[in-house]
Amino acid sequence: MSDSEGDAEVVRAANRAFYEAFERRDLDAMSVVWDHGENVVCTHPGWASLRGWAKVASSWFVLFQNEQRLQFILTNEHVDVRGDTAWVTIDENIIDGDRGVTVAALNVFAREATNGWRMVVHHGSAVGPTVATEG
Amino acid sequence: MSDSEGDAEVVRAANRAFYEAFERRDLDAMSVVWDHGENVVCTHPGWASLRGWAKVASSWFVLFQNEQRLQFILTNEHVDVRGDTAWVTIDENIIDGDRGVTVAALNVFAREATNGWRMVVHHGSAVGPTVATEG
Repeated sequence: MSDSEGDAEVVRAANRAFYEAFERRDLDAMSVVWDHGENVVCTHPGWASLRGWAKVASSWFVLFQNEQRLQFILTNEHVDVRGDTAWVTIDENIIDGDRGVTVAALNVFAREATNGWRMVVHHGSAVGPTVATEG
Repeated sequence: MSDSEGDAEVVRAANRAFYEAFERRDLDAMSVVWDHGENVVCTHPGWASLRGWAKVASSWFVLFQNEQRLQFILTNEHVDVRGDTAWVTIDENIIDGDRGVTVAALNVFAREATNGWRMVVHHGSAVGPTVATEG
């Protein structure tokens, strides 16, 4: 296994840990997945971008108050590693209560000297009709 | 100016070139902004993710058929550079015809030996009510 394949495998595991924490609504596990810096960014579907770990952590706290069953079926996972940065594109097929929705997600990870690969950006957007388009 | 500040400035210019090409609906200029690899990804608001330059270029071609006035007012720009990768988070406040909408965007750039900084990922999502949420 080359270094690059080894890195991709570790990033894939970090990405999996993110969805496991999300599915279990586990704030402690989510905290381990993320970098805690001021520049981390999280954009939930339909939300404005949240910057800095304090705001990002608060958003997970609020989302995790929701008690409905939440299950992810993850498809189309692609990992790109460039040096100490990596990004994952993935489709989150979500069963949330009795609804099924698909969210296109982009997760960026950065390798840190002491903590290894940590999430620095999560951006999710619902696939399907939205109020606004760019084009 | 440190190397890192210099890099951020060049990335900021590349990001600006993306929006100028978008606003002018200039496919040639858009083509210069992007890496042309098979791993580039573009997620327009509400769309599934498109992977590979052929699909991404086609999407710009289709979007640029729209003849309405398109104007971007860009706010909350943040640039992060880590080695040969950089990402920009930015709010696209768009005047499209007679509608005003805000799109939260994440743009990833990679530095290439011959071509310099090129866009490898664009992900935009409308801020406001959407059909689906993750939480």
